[in-house]
Amino acid sequence: MSAAPDRMTKAAQPSRYDIAGFKAEIVGIPVIDEAQVVRKRSRDFFWYSPILNAELANKSADIIVSPRDEAEIVRVAAACARRRIPLTVRAAGTGNYGQAVPLEGGVLLDITALTAIEWQKPGAIRVQAGARLLDIDMATRPSGYELRMHPSTKRSATVGGFVAVGSVTYGGLREPGNILAARVVTVEEEPRILELRDDAAQKVNRAYGTTGIITALEMPLAPAWPWIDVIVAFDDYMDAFQAGYEVALADGIVKKLVTPVSWPIPSYFGALKQHCPQGKCILICMIAEASLGPFKAIIGSRGQVTYEAPSEEGPGTVPLYEYTWNHTTLQWLKSDRSITYLQCLFPHDRLVESAREMIARFPGEVLAHHEFIRFGGRVTASALPILRYTTPERLNEIIALHEEAGVMIANPHVVSLEAGSRHKRADADQLGFKHEVDPHGLMNPGKMASFSPNPR
Amino acid sequence: MSAAPDRMTKAAQPSRYDIAGFKAEIVGIPVIDEAQVVRKRSRDFFWYSPILNAELANKSADIIVSPRDEAEIVRVAAACARRRIPLTVRAAGTGNYGQAVPLEGGVLLDITALTAIEWQKPGAIRVQAGARLLDIDMATRPSGYELRMHPSTKRSATVGGFVAVGSVTYGGLREPGNILAARVVTVEEEPRILELRDDAAQKVNRAYGTTGIITALEMPLAPAWPWIDVIVAFDDYMDAFQAGYEVALADGIVKKLVTPVSWPIPSYFGALKQHCPQGKCILICMIAEASLGPFKAIIGSRGQVTYEAPSEEGPGTVPLYEYTWNHTTLQWLKSDRSITYLQCLFPHDRLVESAREMIARFPGEVLAHHEFIRFGGRVTASALPILRYTTPERLNEIIALHEEAGVMIANPHVVSLEAGSRHKRADADQLGFKHEVDPHGLMNPGKMASFSPNPR
Repeated sequence: MSAAPDRMTKAAQPSRYDIAGFKAEIVGIPVIDEAQVVRKRSRDFFWYSPILNAELANKSADIIVSPRDEAEIVRVAAACARRRIPLTVRAAGTGNYGQAVPLEGGVLLDITALTAIEWQKPGAIRVQAGARLLDIDMATRPSGYELRMHPSTKRSATVGGFVAVGSVTYGGLREPGNILAARVVTVEEEPRILELRDDAAQKVNRAYGTTGIITALEMPLAPAWPWIDVIVAFDDYMDAFQAGYEVALADGIVKKLVTPVSWPIPSYFGALKQHCPQGKCILICMIAEASLGPFKAIIGSRGQVTYEAPSEEGPGTVPLYEYTWNHTTLQWLKSDRSITYLQCLFPHDRLVESAREMIARFPGEVLAHHEFIRFGGRVTASALPILRYTTPERLNEIIALHEEAGVMIANPHVVSLEAGSRHKRADADQLGFKHEVDPHGLMNPGKMASFSPNPR
Repeated sequence: MSAAPDRMTKAAQPSRYDIAGFKAEIVGIPVIDEAQVVRKRSRDFFWYSPILNAELANKSADIIVSPRDEAEIVRVAAACARRRIPLTVRAAGTGNYGQAVPLEGGVLLDITALTAIEWQKPGAIRVQAGARLLDIDMATRPSGYELRMHPSTKRSATVGGFVAVGSVTYGGLREPGNILAARVVTVEEEPRILELRDDAAQKVNRAYGTTGIITALEMPLAPAWPWIDVIVAFDDYMDAFQAGYEVALADGIVKKLVTPVSWPIPSYFGALKQHCPQGKCILICMIAEASLGPFKAIIGSRGQVTYEAPSEEGPGTVPLYEYTWNHTTLQWLKSDRSITYLQCLFPHDRLVESAREMIARFPGEVLAHHEFIRFGGRVTASALPILRYTTPERLNEIIALHEEAGVMIANPHVVSLEAGSRHKRADADQLGFKHEVDPHGLMNPGKMASFSPNPR
């Protein structure tokens, strides 16, 4: 496979790496080296950020490899280690931080062919890393179960690429019990296969694919309730927020999504606009059918139910959750590329006050929508507000003002894992673990910026 | 039916009420008027409290009526209303506050014959009020569901008599969504049948049976996980408490019971003693099988697992939960009647500190065991500590000291609903509702002490 000559300019530049030798070593495993395709597949949704867009636009791997099983992954890992070729793992590429964008070129390891479900039992499933989240739910629902949480990209994202979004019932993916086990191939001359359970399995989480190649995951399941999608319209955003907070706190109400959205965001909601009255703020919820009565009792006369129907996520429908989390940003970006977003975690002990403060502080500039979640056992809100972008300086100022007010920011406008984390550093565990599984530092070098290989 | 002459002394005293006329009116409905039996069935577990024991020991109904369906209940209610005979509803009588003890004699309405399951569907069930909680679980488990919460008296208690204990996952029975509907017969000359849903259904909750005769309840269900009973031993009580708190906060871990118990309480634990090492404090938990690994990861090396087995609650076994909540008190009372207990709700925002304070304040006098629960959306602890009883004055002093320290007390040593509630009053809703359903104030007069009938 090769690209047309007129498109070869960039790809024709000699790679820094021994790609030819690599290809010879992994013969029999499907590869793509057509420059256009490789460049396209080296991207994710980093373009939501004008800053990342400038920084990552020209990053590309040299070659895509698509192994079909773990044995082929082991061969690829060994070949990269021997030739010191960077390796970046890529699944559906639905991330927003350039997680899967190769910063130093090299091999893009496409895991989307590994989709098998190894087993399922009541409450748990073991799947290969490339299985799509929606397919997992389709496979588990006949026995009454589903994944505990999923990103708004559920219909395309894979379980291996799934970076936690948190949930209103089970807390974040990082919390104990939300990943049961992970199987990892190390990037060494003689790759090892590690089976990690419980605490140890958390080492692979949110490391942006820099700590070994995940080939399988064992995930806990939740009961699959018959979910009802509901939209409630409110005159005032804080009323929608308060009602959502009460629903989130009501442990007797089984729910999956509680998302207040301020006007004018719903005016960008395409097919959903007919259920979003002009000028109104809305509360988007997924509520178990059996809890719908008590849910409405909480809402009372404060808001008006404008939509109520069983959740659907089959082909040809846009599920309600594709208007929440960072899909909200996407809905707006479809018609207006001038905005970007932030990623916030509000303090649980002064949630309403801090939400109100941030709204008052940036009128017309930072537009609120929140996601109620449980975090460390407490009900609080995450948020990915729409931000009318002007300059990098102003963006950074807004971030700083949030942090001063006690609203934690996971900066989605930076390349490295450390700069993007709430704590501005890689976990000690993650750094130590990386020495074990990627001693040469070949997994997307630059992504875990504070890592440097031990001298050998 | 009549008692032996030598036992007739008390029953032979003429009743204040027209019991003969009442009997004639309800002919065909089973009654018991043998004084010994009536006195025995007029009691509950109020004797846990030395104060209530003195106060209630001689209270008795005049007659027991055991209707077999709602139509018979309507006849009993009408007969009581016409003759102004007090009526006290009684099911299994597992309460500890004399809820079902007739303060003014009259009719004891036994609802234990109404046990039918009207229907069940995924996530909800509708049952008659006399159905036993264990029987409900047995009926729902084949379809993968169970009640969301139950008292430690589950094996004998009925759904109608169930006064909320709260749960670590779904919050209290009083929280929205935890009772879906209730059917109530009013105590009037022409009884009405009210069908109450959602908010309205909460009016019947924790009113000690003074707001209408509940004949059926619609309850939400929870997925029935395979539960594992676990005991972990710790050197120090606050270590057990802290570990339990972390488990309670871990939303990714599916659990049903998290109960730290201080030494020497486990030395009174009968069959369970073999799993309770001498001098150690223990943590009693019910954990879903799929969450057992992460549960143990949280415990880590702080405690030692001394027992681990699938939950059993069939005949001939003593389920683990019968060592928790107020069953803890019962275990001790089996061999030592000198103790009693308190009923506490700790503040969620200084939980560890306030638990530590109370333990330090009453060494050897108030012996700690806590129940982690979610209350209003926050993880906190309820507690029914063992109290070495000396005098009523000291008991009241201890209660006052708890309240001063921000630990709310639902006083289990008082007769009236108001004195026993955390807020020292009947709910405005409950009072108003009582006028509707019991206009003559016949339902266990004195129990809702602040109620007086409207003049007619």
